[in-house]
Amino acid sequence: MRAIVAHAAKDLRIEERQRREPGDDEVVVQVERGGICGSDLHYFNHGGFGTVKLREPMILGHEIAGSIIESRSGLLAPGQRVAVSPSRPCRNCNYCLEGKPNHCMNMRFYGSAMPFPHIQGAFREQLTVRADQCAPADDLSIGEAAMAEPLAVTVHAARQAGNLVGKRVLVTGCGPIGLLCILVARSSGAVEVVATDIADFPLQTAGAIGADTAVNAAEEGALDTWYKGKGHFDVHFECTGVASALASAIPALRPGGTIVQLGLGGDMTLPVQQMTAKELQLRGSFRFHEEFFTGNNWMRNGQIDVKPLITHTLALNNAIEAFELASDRSQALKVQLAFN
Amino acid sequence: MRAIVAHAAKDLRIEERQRREPGDDEVVVQVERGGICGSDLHYFNHGGFGTVKLREPMILGHEIAGSIIESRSGLLAPGQRVAVSPSRPCRNCNYCLEGKPNHCMNMRFYGSAMPFPHIQGAFREQLTVRADQCAPADDLSIGEAAMAEPLAVTVHAARQAGNLVGKRVLVTGCGPIGLLCILVARSSGAVEVVATDIADFPLQTAGAIGADTAVNAAEEGALDTWYKGKGHFDVHFECTGVASALASAIPALRPGGTIVQLGLGGDMTLPVQQMTAKELQLRGSFRFHEEFFTGNNWMRNGQIDVKPLITHTLALNNAIEAFELASDRSQALKVQLAFN
Amino acid sequence: MRAIVAHAAKDLRIEERQRREPGDDEVVVQVERGGICGSDLHYFNHGGFGTVKLREPMILGHEIAGSIIESRSGLLAPGQRVAVSPSRPCRNCNYCLEGKPNHCMNMRFYGSAMPFPHIQGAFREQLTVRADQCAPADDLSIGEAAMAEPLAVTVHAARQAGNLVGKRVLVTGCGPIGLLCILVARSSGAVEVVATDIADFPLQTAGAIGADTAVNAAEEGALDTWYKGKGHFDVHFECTGVASALASAIPALRPGGTIVQLGLGGDMTLPVQQMTAKELQLRGSFRFHEEFFTGNNWMRNGQIDVKPLITHTLALNNAIEAFELASDRSQALKVQLAFN
Amino acid sequence: MRAIVAHAAKDLRIEERQRREPGDDEVVVQVERGGICGSDLHYFNHGGFGTVKLREPMILGHEIAGSIIESRSGLLAPGQRVAVSPSRPCRNCNYCLEGKPNHCMNMRFYGSAMPFPHIQGAFREQLTVRADQCAPADDLSIGEAAMAEPLAVTVHAARQAGNLVGKRVLVTGCGPIGLLCILVARSSGAVEVVATDIADFPLQTAGAIGADTAVNAAEEGALDTWYKGKGHFDVHFECTGVASALASAIPALRPGGTIVQLGLGGDMTLPVQQMTAKELQLRGSFRFHEEFFTGNNWMRNGQIDVKPLITHTLALNNAIEAFELASDRSQALKVQLAFN
Repeated sequence: MRAIVAHAAKDLRIEERQRREPGDDEVVVQVERGGICGSDLHYFNHGGFGTVKLREPMILGHEIAGSIIESRSGLLAPGQRVAVSPSRPCRNCNYCLEGKPNHCMNMRFYGSAMPFPHIQGAFREQLTVRADQCAPADDLSIGEAAMAEPLAVTVHAARQAGNLVGKRVLVTGCGPIGLLCILVARSSGAVEVVATDIADFPLQTAGAIGADTAVNAAEEGALDTWYKGKGHFDVHFECTGVASALASAIPALRPGGTIVQLGLGGDMTLPVQQMTAKELQLRGSFRFHEEFFTGNNWMRNGQIDVKPLITHTLALNNAIEAFELASDRSQALKVQLAFN
Repeated sequence: MRAIVAHAAKDLRIEERQRREPGDDEVVVQVERGGICGSDLHYFNHGGFGTVKLREPMILGHEIAGSIIESRSGLLAPGQRVAVSPSRPCRNCNYCLEGKPNHCMNMRFYGSAMPFPHIQGAFREQLTVRADQCAPADDLSIGEAAMAEPLAVTVHAARQAGNLVGKRVLVTGCGPIGLLCILVARSSGAVEVVATDIADFPLQTAGAIGADTAVNAAEEGALDTWYKGKGHFDVHFECTGVASALASAIPALRPGGTIVQLGLGGDMTLPVQQMTAKELQLRGSFRFHEEFFTGNNWMRNGQIDVKPLITHTLALNNAIEAFELASDRSQALKVQLAFN
Repeated sequence: MRAIVAHAAKDLRIEERQRREPGDDEVVVQVERGGICGSDLHYFNHGGFGTVKLREPMILGHEIAGSIIESRSGLLAPGQRVAVSPSRPCRNCNYCLEGKPNHCMNMRFYGSAMPFPHIQGAFREQLTVRADQCAPADDLSIGEAAMAEPLAVTVHAARQAGNLVGKRVLVTGCGPIGLLCILVARSSGAVEVVATDIADFPLQTAGAIGADTAVNAAEEGALDTWYKGKGHFDVHFECTGVASALASAIPALRPGGTIVQLGLGGDMTLPVQQMTAKELQLRGSFRFHEEFFTGNNWMRNGQIDVKPLITHTLALNNAIEAFELASDRSQALKVQLAFN
Repeated sequence: MRAIVAHAAKDLRIEERQRREPGDDEVVVQVERGGICGSDLHYFNHGGFGTVKLREPMILGHEIAGSIIESRSGLLAPGQRVAVSPSRPCRNCNYCLEGKPNHCMNMRFYGSAMPFPHIQGAFREQLTVRADQCAPADDLSIGEAAMAEPLAVTVHAARQAGNLVGKRVLVTGCGPIGLLCILVARSSGAVEVVATDIADFPLQTAGAIGADTAVNAAEEGALDTWYKGKGHFDVHFECTGVASALASAIPALRPGGTIVQLGLGGDMTLPVQQMTAKELQLRGSFRFHEEFFTGNNWMRNGQIDVKPLITHTLALNNAIEAFELASDRSQALKVQLAFN
């Protein structure tokens, strides 16, 4: 079977790989759709991010959906459509036993160069997985099903933010993660969502999917309206990884407000004195686990509609073109690969 | 102007009252719609509930909406439709200063016989209120606007339950409050809602508005499916006030789960040993304050649709008939009075 | 070796048992001291409690300390004094993986007749245990070390109560668990502790170990002082299992206050309407896990002194006398057995 | 009466001021002792900190204790020793009504150049205050009573950290605030406290008052022991305001750990990617309100002993010498002024 393998920055190849035979409680999934994530783009464009660098060829990808073609589990039958969670904690280390599987000491998250040997990814035609990685998705389109993973990232971020019922929310950065934060904030009970970006296309989408206001942060005084008193927002989802985006939001946050940092941007110079005097909380959000099933369930119930985020679907053979396109914020949000 | 006054059990009269002149930051509201609440019914049918008894004639009502006809506030203009919050804390006692205005030592909640003299209610043709009691509702029907108050009760209950994102929820009792709990649980991120009642009509509505399953609790083994393992639900909204409803839910709750008690039913005999061994939390929920605006906002955003709950609207002159109807669970959910 | 075996109510025998050979990461402990717990007394006096009944002979006991005599663990050496935790979760079920090991589906807590076959207890001269059940206790007396278990019960209860810093605390029932609640509340930052009981002896101890006020609950109007306004206490540790103790405390609790239920008393008739109107939380507390090490650490640091609670120490041969004595609240608090 | 007035950096003068006559519920306090705080030192040495600058002469000081000499309150009598809280929120703004008085829009905290006109401080011989600013302190030495304010800062910080029962704590910076964090962490239930500084004198005190380990952070690999696995500490009280102190602690923090920032050091360049991947929380802590009474109560109960932190007491006439001394970390911790 074929797989999409990153060898180095700008060196992406389609190569043959063997599939692994399923064991007990495992299934084989025919992968049909795979979304390109920001971290995939970092490997593609730069060979990694921050201290995480490719040190050997690695299959990319962790946002996938497909159909069961072989099952050793009583819960899943051949033919069933599933979204596949890339989160594979060991279920045995201290963090797993504390209910924090996303911090597992031995996590095998698809397509990650953090450990060495790297954890090979899921952009391959067939994938052998544990049954409990699969979320039933027969009532979703295959494209939506492949959105369950980035959606899960933002459901986890929403939980890091605490209870959002009645809260006013600011989202900085309207790429796919920022846009999903808008949807998730609404679906978690927020009463107001303001979104910012510096590009028009994502801002238009932000308005279309439910932001009350979409603001171009490049404009002078873009957030001034919300600086009055001691600020306006209870929660800030920071999806740019850019220090100025975080810093310019601070006067717009109410004392005691929470900033959830999703963007991975390396070191940032922050106005810590201001943050301390307002008793803000800056909280990282990293991956997810059970939230994969929460988000998938919301899509199936109709509580959330991610379809407007999928702007392009390209065939596996056009993978390089797809990666280039996904890097172009003027026209692309989520770009997905069709494997069949 | 006319008002609906309870003198004793089954002694309801329409009487003339004077309206109060507005002071600074006050407005006069022409009341157009008023919903009949469970506590109104208790006063009408029994002259009170538990230790709370009518000791003097009292205007009933606290679920109202109407139009501004006179304004001393810069924020509200004549002609504007508003939902009016009955929550009037003193803003000065220790509980107000701790951010718990619903426990204000000097609360003046409309239509309550808890203090003496009683706090006169809002079922009158004109009502003089503080501007900050008014939630703008031009984009809602007058009937929906008058649902902001019971909706607020359940938004507050949802906050008592903690963060509902990804949670499985059981609702016992599908009167208006139980049905609103279903809507609010969905709107706060729950992934599954099961509802029970002993009457068919409310159960049908529960299913229609979003419960995944609606169960007749009078049937043998009604909850058995959810008793497996150590239980299934994370959160239980108890809206009956009946001990057996609470007790039969306990084996269906997961260890550490939360029961939010909304029903007011006096003493209850509870299986405390079982609750202790499962480390359940039984939490009361009482009234609301800022949640009035949260719920109103959700209706305006389209996040929640309360219209299916309004089964009857009767003219002020038919108030007694309306109260009789509201007591009949076989056909009525929310019964509202039209004041104009 | 000898063990203390309950055959039925009032039928306690000292019998011979075999010790199990240690496996990897296991040690053999020479048991030197064992405290008699309320549940041991229930088995001794009544053959069980609530629905939990002896159905076969069962070794009692779960509050023990002793010395390592054989070690297959690199962390523990022969000769070392240790307190032994009776909490043995499976580390594999859903509750273990959620960080709630005290709700493990397959818990093997010493001396419990909840499952069948019963889990045999720890009142035996030698016990083979996992190394991670052992808390080093060389700097404690053997009697203190054997208090680590009931102390852990109350440390867990304190965590169920939430952050106690600055809180006012009421403790009803001054047996060993209530007294430990007093110590633990102080050690967790409470600013005021009031304790009640109906017997003089435990009340005197309550005052001596740190309660600001010790009140005889049998006296008329015992808690009236704290009924003013809407009540005084933030947290109530209920250690009697008697409904009247819980009910009479309710007017003394501030709105939003927390009742932690430790006493196991079967069904209780509670003033739920009052609890709902005050938005009280009634939370069960059941066993513990990591808190065993927290409490042991506090004793070693000198943050807590449990010695005043140990009123009697009897030899193993006098076990029946020890159990009779432990049932006598007029003179006994914690009664311990000396095994050597 | 005399007062200590800062005119500019290094321009401190003792000047005459008039005392204000007490109104209802007010008292006049004869100030006897005043502690010099870090912010006082910033005004003295630099004329301010960050964006906060002296723009007019300002009386310094906010850590004071003394005796009532005139009372218009039924609760306080002349002759009584009191600690005086400098926290004077308006009790009327939105933040006051949300239970966050430390973020009051109209706060009048003694000796602050944040607003203009500046809020004059408490280093004066007589001070007219609200009765509810006074905490009874007859059973404390006057020096201890004047420690209630910095102690309150750290009690508030401990609450920002969440429940500390069973937690492992790191304190960076062992000036008076860091040392109080050690005491408060212990008094709130922490099981381990490690402290760092770069000077020997404060480190010795840290060990003497209860840190399990006191580490010189200037040494190579000072924190390496705690870097194993994914780190060791649950909570980090950051009292230096120096970016490297925060950054070097990050690998020593467990995933999900909390950093409470107390030091006010302007902008800081932080390894946000690392913090995000570990889902750390960085939380500011700013002043306090009711914690003033909590800390004072702990001192009176003997739960906490602050006396070892008071290294010097100088007469009012030697104020400049006292400020110079307080700036010298090689010999001074808390320096207090004796006003009588």
